[in-house]
Amino acid sequence: MSLDWESQAQKGRDILTNSIPKQWLVPADRLPPASQKSVVDFPRESGLLSTRELQITDMTATALVAEMGKGALTAEEVVTAFLKRAVIGHQLLNFATEFLAEEAISRAKELDEYYRRTGRLVGPLHGVPISVKEHLSMKNRTCNTGYVAWTDKVYTEDALLLQLLSKAGAVFHVRTNQPQSLMHLCCSNNITGTTVNPHNRTLTPGGSSGGEGASMGFRCAPLGIGTDIGGSIRCPAAFCGAYGFRPSSLRNPATGIKVASSGQENIRGVVGPMSSRSIEDLELFQRAVLDQEPWDVETSLMPLPWKNVAPTRNMTVAIMWDDGCVRPHPPITRALRFARDRLVAAGIKVVDWEPYKHQHGWEVISALYYPDAGEKQRELLAQSGEPARPLTEWALSYSKSKPLTQAETWNLQEQREIYRDEYCGIMKSRGVDFILSPNYPGVAAVMGESQYWNYTAIWNIVDLPSATFPSGLTVDSKLDVLTENDRRYIPRDDVDEREWRKYQGPERYEGAPIGLQIAGRRFKDEETLAAAKVVEEIVGGQLNSKL
Amino acid sequence: MSLDWESQAQKGRDILTNSIPKQWLVPADRLPPASQKSVVDFPRESGLLSTRELQITDMTATALVAEMGKGALTAEEVVTAFLKRAVIGHQLLNFATEFLAEEAISRAKELDEYYRRTGRLVGPLHGVPISVKEHLSMKNRTCNTGYVAWTDKVYTEDALLLQLLSKAGAVFHVRTNQPQSLMHLCCSNNITGTTVNPHNRTLTPGGSSGGEGASMGFRCAPLGIGTDIGGSIRCPAAFCGAYGFRPSSLRNPATGIKVASSGQENIRGVVGPMSSRSIEDLELFQRAVLDQEPWDVETSLMPLPWKNVAPTRNMTVAIMWDDGCVRPHPPITRALRFARDRLVAAGIKVVDWEPYKHQHGWEVISALYYPDAGEKQRELLAQSGEPARPLTEWALSYSKSKPLTQAETWNLQEQREIYRDEYCGIMKSRGVDFILSPNYPGVAAVMGESQYWNYTAIWNIVDLPSATFPSGLTVDSKLDVLTENDRRYIPRDDVDEREWRKYQGPERYEGAPIGLQIAGRRFKDEETLAAAKVVEEIVGGQLNSKL
Repeated sequence: MSLDWESQAQKGRDILTNSIPKQWLVPADRLPPASQKSVVDFPRESGLLSTRELQITDMTATALVAEMGKGALTAEEVVTAFLKRAVIGHQLLNFATEFLAEEAISRAKELDEYYRRTGRLVGPLHGVPISVKEHLSMKNRTCNTGYVAWTDKVYTEDALLLQLLSKAGAVFHVRTNQPQSLMHLCCSNNITGTTVNPHNRTLTPGGSSGGEGASMGFRCAPLGIGTDIGGSIRCPAAFCGAYGFRPSSLRNPATGIKVASSGQENIRGVVGPMSSRSIEDLELFQRAVLDQEPWDVETSLMPLPWKNVAPTRNMTVAIMWDDGCVRPHPPITRALRFARDRLVAAGIKVVDWEPYKHQHGWEVISALYYPDAGEKQRELLAQSGEPARPLTEWALSYSKSKPLTQAETWNLQEQREIYRDEYCGIMKSRGVDFILSPNYPGVAAVMGESQYWNYTAIWNIVDLPSATFPSGLTVDSKLDVLTENDRRYIPRDDVDEREWRKYQGPERYEGAPIGLQIAGRRFKDEETLAAAKVVEEIVGGQLNSKL
Repeated sequence: MSLDWESQAQKGRDILTNSIPKQWLVPADRLPPASQKSVVDFPRESGLLSTRELQITDMTATALVAEMGKGALTAEEVVTAFLKRAVIGHQLLNFATEFLAEEAISRAKELDEYYRRTGRLVGPLHGVPISVKEHLSMKNRTCNTGYVAWTDKVYTEDALLLQLLSKAGAVFHVRTNQPQSLMHLCCSNNITGTTVNPHNRTLTPGGSSGGEGASMGFRCAPLGIGTDIGGSIRCPAAFCGAYGFRPSSLRNPATGIKVASSGQENIRGVVGPMSSRSIEDLELFQRAVLDQEPWDVETSLMPLPWKNVAPTRNMTVAIMWDDGCVRPHPPITRALRFARDRLVAAGIKVVDWEPYKHQHGWEVISALYYPDAGEKQRELLAQSGEPARPLTEWALSYSKSKPLTQAETWNLQEQREIYRDEYCGIMKSRGVDFILSPNYPGVAAVMGESQYWNYTAIWNIVDLPSATFPSGLTVDSKLDVLTENDRRYIPRDDVDEREWRKYQGPERYEGAPIGLQIAGRRFKDEETLAAAKVVEEIVGGQLNSKL
């Protein structure tokens, strides 16, 4: 059996290896040593990219489109610059599953030709390179979703979201890695292995959109596409110092995104944008998609166009210091304090957020992740004979020993609805517009240690739009040491203890960026991104721009 | 056991009996003989209602509100007139489960007082009496949903929809009957028995909102509230010569509507308005509800306000003569021809509708009605020991012998989504705005014979907004006889044969009105009612107004 799954997995690796544009591969002796933790400065320091290429890859999608609209940049040079950076990034981080260099450049040339002919851009994403999580299907390509069993599964259509982005002018140049089962806040599988964090290669980029996290953190693309059923967009964005948006469910189209439990609606996963540089780019992405009325094709989506919402400082932001279950690590608490001080100084109304039954929320959502007791997942692993990764076993440990009955499923769904209605009612009655919180108990986890999801999953069950952005701060060897007070902390229970004990001190997390998360009221996707822009500008904007 | 359930059922009957306002009860000798089929003219012919009461109970909700706004009518006299008519109606049709006379009159007096004090109406439904299907819970009242086991189940809150309607000024004066299990296109249970059709008391008023059908057909209220997961609003509206609207799912609030399979989301039931007199009243109801933004409380609803849509004749209406599975009876086909001729004469573009895989649609939806193999239903029956009614057994026969696995459920849900996307895509590619069709193979079924749901259920699975309205025609003893051609019809299969054989001839259906159904594109609820108004005015408006 073991030989079998390994040769099947090799097919996936071959697709990757054969797709890498060899002309841009960096010889091993010019790469930083494996022991070098942070590689984010390598593109600049190595001299491998030209000044112009560095400038291009440092720009936001919004700025790139503007420059292309003025004729100051061509799509071809934009796509080429990001492709080169992505190849370097892949050598350092193992984040890609397949490069699409030829098609990307050929599509960029078409866009340039269109622009030359008409003087106009094709659409709002004209020439913007977008990296794509692997489990979005692409026409005539494989889509393995992290399962060895699916390494040679080929699809005949692009995922609907990709069709729309492509119509808007986007160019897909690289597909990115995901964990086995898609249910790790980490990124390793038995096909293309483990992706690491560009800010510290001993840490995980997070997951499940971990390849996208690395892609954004290393600026292999200005925009990326992730999916999120428990934090899988926001966790990698936070771990990698990037931006991510979990839209409300039933807004972005899911058709053609391949998952094990296709047709499962107990908890809806969503697809959304990630960005290396700005909230504005997340908005650009959302508008480009929703302006095309995807509900006309995928008819379960809500027929809601993307509204224009002006950013305002006239809002109440509540800070969730702790979810009442797992105490955040010192760097996270420091970033929240920093944010609070800056927001207050900027005249924003800031209050504390008392969490509402997060443990109950977790019990409901975690029971609904695997109503089939994980049978489908195990079946897919058994199909190839590949071994389960430790974090797959961890995620499956949430499932019950036997499938839920229909009555149990209905009951949990009812609990989910009641909990969401109550949570939304409480936000309203407290007059809170947005909740600022951690994404995770700590910064990027040490590989294999990411076990606690509920700082993000809570907004999946409540189904609040939520955006992740960098605080502008990174772990600090002086400021983030455990204080006497910290050392005296008595954890609430085993889970709290497990998570708290992981911290140990800033040394394990050297260089890790500290992300924050902002969640808005139900359905207020546009308002949430507008608020995230205001908050990020006040909290982290200037600091972050030095990167 | 049998004594037990009967005494439990008696509690439900006692609630009804004790609630009837005795002062308006008609002595038995003034009632028409049990053998008299149609009783729709009884209020006028009997002299039991005054001319003014007859005028009031013949008015639409829209007209009533206008008159109350001018001070020409009081809420008290409106509510009293409908209460009187409802008591008579109940004696003739057995449609009520509980009268709310005292509260209704007291609420009406409050409304009148408010109007006297301010010169203004409380809201858009000021003083409008609305009859309510029993399984919408009411504060401090029982709610049995047709199950003997629940006859003494008391709730502490009004259903959210009732709260909103009440805020808009509506007055609830009577609660109405439903079948055991809610899954009959008929209306009988072991508590308050069987409701009959006002146009012909040997026929069923349809179901499951059969009490509402009778209420609308006899004009016991200008507006009523039904629920629909397979036709339960549209079928009784059609059978009783009334109007009904099945909105898209996730528009009207469902909180506090009690069903056996609470939390079930495989196929979503909806709640919607029924009207005795006009499409305009259905719109009035929808606007009054959605203007209050129910999604702010019941957060699974789509945040879509009710749009103003101007009626237009610039549309393409496709006529579905036959669903490809069960051939409609002669009166239905005659009404469709009549409608076609009138629409064409009015300059509307009319084409034929070729149905798309309705048998497949039925297989998917019927499998999803009882993913638990009907266990919950049987458990509820077993709880009291009441016997299953024949049509409950019939509905349960759709369920599999054992519960669906989670994987089977997911697969069916995926099939449902694919089917809906395909159906909507076909409407769009054919350029069809609306589909005009039967609601049922025939007119009101003979008691116990209503077995084929798919002329309505098809729009539940595709989730299209659909409205039922009277064609203005009734079964005609001359025009609707079986022709030689009809007699030679060779049914496609057993189901087609079963339904076709039921017709026999117009005699069985004497006086039965012929309803039609119009379905609009996905999410086009407002456009569908606007189109229904245009079509109904052209097809049946004048004829119907003679009633």
